[in-house]
Amino acid sequence: MSYTEALKSAKGVKDWYGRQAILRNHVRDTLRAVFERYGYNPVETPVIEREEVLSLKGGGEIQKEVFRLTDQGKRRLALRFDQTLPLARFYANHPELKSPYKRYAIGDVFRDGPTQPEQGRYRIFTQCDVDIIGVEGMAAEAELLTLAYDAFRELGLGDVTVKINNRKALDGIMDVAGIPDSAKVEAIIILDKLEKIGTDEVKKELSRIGGGLLPGSAVDALIEHTAVQGTNRERMDYLQRIMTSDTGRRGLEEIRGLLSYCDEMDFDFVEFDPSLARGLDYYTGTTIEVFLKKRDILNSAIVAGGRFDNMIGDFRGAGTAVPAVGLSFGLERTCMAVESVMSGTKETVTELFIIPLNTLSVSLKLAHIIRQQKINVDIDLTGRSLKSAMRYADSLGIPFVGIIGEDEVKKEVITIKRLSDGLQNQIAVTGVKSYLDINRDSGKSMSRLVLHKP
Amino acid sequence: MSYTEALKSAKGVKDWYGRQAILRNHVRDTLRAVFERYGYNPVETPVIEREEVLSLKGGGEIQKEVFRLTDQGKRRLALRFDQTLPLARFYANHPELKSPYKRYAIGDVFRDGPTQPEQGRYRIFTQCDVDIIGVEGMAAEAELLTLAYDAFRELGLGDVTVKINNRKALDGIMDVAGIPDSAKVEAIIILDKLEKIGTDEVKKELSRIGGGLLPGSAVDALIEHTAVQGTNRERMDYLQRIMTSDTGRRGLEEIRGLLSYCDEMDFDFVEFDPSLARGLDYYTGTTIEVFLKKRDILNSAIVAGGRFDNMIGDFRGAGTAVPAVGLSFGLERTCMAVESVMSGTKETVTELFIIPLNTLSVSLKLAHIIRQQKINVDIDLTGRSLKSAMRYADSLGIPFVGIIGEDEVKKEVITIKRLSDGLQNQIAVTGVKSYLDINRDSGKSMSRLVLHKP
Repeated sequence: MSYTEALKSAKGVKDWYGRQAILRNHVRDTLRAVFERYGYNPVETPVIEREEVLSLKGGGEIQKEVFRLTDQGKRRLALRFDQTLPLARFYANHPELKSPYKRYAIGDVFRDGPTQPEQGRYRIFTQCDVDIIGVEGMAAEAELLTLAYDAFRELGLGDVTVKINNRKALDGIMDVAGIPDSAKVEAIIILDKLEKIGTDEVKKELSRIGGGLLPGSAVDALIEHTAVQGTNRERMDYLQRIMTSDTGRRGLEEIRGLLSYCDEMDFDFVEFDPSLARGLDYYTGTTIEVFLKKRDILNSAIVAGGRFDNMIGDFRGAGTAVPAVGLSFGLERTCMAVESVMSGTKETVTELFIIPLNTLSVSLKLAHIIRQQKINVDIDLTGRSLKSAMRYADSLGIPFVGIIGEDEVKKEVITIKRLSDGLQNQIAVTGVKSYLDINRDSGKSMSRLVLHKP
Repeated sequence: MSYTEALKSAKGVKDWYGRQAILRNHVRDTLRAVFERYGYNPVETPVIEREEVLSLKGGGEIQKEVFRLTDQGKRRLALRFDQTLPLARFYANHPELKSPYKRYAIGDVFRDGPTQPEQGRYRIFTQCDVDIIGVEGMAAEAELLTLAYDAFRELGLGDVTVKINNRKALDGIMDVAGIPDSAKVEAIIILDKLEKIGTDEVKKELSRIGGGLLPGSAVDALIEHTAVQGTNRERMDYLQRIMTSDTGRRGLEEIRGLLSYCDEMDFDFVEFDPSLARGLDYYTGTTIEVFLKKRDILNSAIVAGGRFDNMIGDFRGAGTAVPAVGLSFGLERTCMAVESVMSGTKETVTELFIIPLNTLSVSLKLAHIIRQQKINVDIDLTGRSLKSAMRYADSLGIPFVGIIGEDEVKKEVITIKRLSDGLQNQIAVTGVKSYLDINRDSGKSMSRLVLHKP
């Protein structure tokens, strides 16, 4: 095994650096600030869990994509495929936590499956989750949608559609269509592919469940009822008319409750979509997906989530349901969406590049003084020529260079040059911050993070 | 397998929540700000690498602790045990990156070994790394020590000792002691345990290398020369006198260079310790460890690092050395250190808990308006009684509650009560921020993050 052969990274993963890594930090920071503004507190659970824990929920589809491993003690472990099961495991371990419990978690999850970089899908991706445990009413969902609204606004993403549905309603529709209970979980997983593979393929796959368990009429009815068109109210009315089961009616009641909160908040971008399925088996009520309106930029959901009222109770083993609902922002997709509306992105965090001319040792000290003014300052440590150091700073997109020769050292000043237009002045080392504050905005626009406000 | 049996988390890992999770964010944010202030840019590499990549460096000791796994395509993978090898792999893949290249990385690393929670050692821990690639001179080390100094100061950690040594100098000492080249790597690994197991045990282990390869005199000489006492200058002078090899002399020259930068910066907390070894095999020059002066709080290094001039060249396969040096802040240990000097820690991010009295729907809207003032606001979504909601807010350590009854809705105000002393006022919803700003500081001190300034 030679070194050069070993260069490659693992299949399906990605290094984030430069502009993109800076953007990831920006999006993460923004989401965190919004999460905290809604009173969610941080939790970090480990990416490795016992295999048993991760086998309890999620369904067969996702179980195929779990990375499994063992430790030296032959214990069977797995890498988490979401942060929801770990939340349930964590919460079940901490009966002392007060209810309701609201937490956020920003971390990596792992799926050993196909990747789709143009849709931000990798084998390792970062989920930014907010969950509320202990609130039964639709006010929890309403809060989460308001939070998502604020997050999108702060990220400069105005043009989104929020789709909502409800597992109980979907269950009721399946009852009406004549789908037996035994086929429901599989039917939901297939329905979840509607956007991806289209109606005809979904019908084909549905008719293959259990080796042809479902009559063609049931398949057609399921597609027909979930494809109902019109306003939210018209869809509600249609389903209200056909719904036969109590479960289904309860589901519609929940949707009605959530939509009424949305009306109160003037959220006209919330669309009730009876075909919204979500592939995971643990949802019990509301399901939510958020899409860019410009589907050509990104066709997959940026945010997804829903209500999972049984999982935590099951983990606690108490037999009682513990209501829970959450949303997950996909970091990679959110970044793609933000990138699509940004007019310029920052290439570097550095604002000022100091070039010492035979003054390295004292320049290190002066750089230290300037950094105390909370400016991001890099310094040439190689002793190269002024010209070559300037070229380096420019190639990195650093807006200002600061030259410190022996003359500057004597006068305790720094000669600051703006690379975009050559504007040059000698500035006292203690006054660098105010100088940059004044002269920054006319600098290179490409070196700054600029968002179109929605 | 029942649910209740499945509750446990994996061996040797930890959930971070409440006060500790808030502290982790605070420390991470502070380190990130300092890293960026020094012109380091973020990079995120995946926690999964190809097994071959992680097998190339690090040494046999660490290789025993690597978590290994395969994907569905039977590819052999591993979880990274540090962020330095991934950096080398990443940098080698990107010949377009300008030199010098400075990056920081904050992420999880994995070691399937013994844990020691009281020393902040877990199987998953978070490293906060800064590395400079492409700078040969000791100015790079000087910058890293200045950065560490600033980071500690911002974290309120004044009382630290920085130990430095140099692999070339240590190599020279081993030459003087008569340790053959074939035994040097193993000798360094054993010497690294000096703090942990003491001189006698180290001697015993050294004498066991290669089934008793080393004569007792060599073992004694190694211990004697590395244990030299006195000031940095006295230690330097002693080693200068005994050193015979060119490599050893070059090592001392590098230490002298670094110490001279430290003198220039008035860093009197930097101690040259010839016994400092560092267990990893990839170091080629300077090695660095930072300890709390109060070793009873934490005996292990909070920060560690050094120079690895061969690794990146080896990865690039060019046969030329690419100089590189870095530092790694252990997040868990840094948090332990910060905790030991904090007079109070924040239990929650929430500042204000809104209690709607039969006004939930409109209160959600008012909460939204208040949040636009960038205040962290939670709201009761359960409809419980005022008394029970107040008790809940108090138990979470939230300093203020805000009551919104029908009267408040009419007047567009909120009745804000400070829980520490009952101070209560009706405040316009648009004026909540300025009210809290004025009345915050006299609130519960335990609910705020207060640092002793060094």
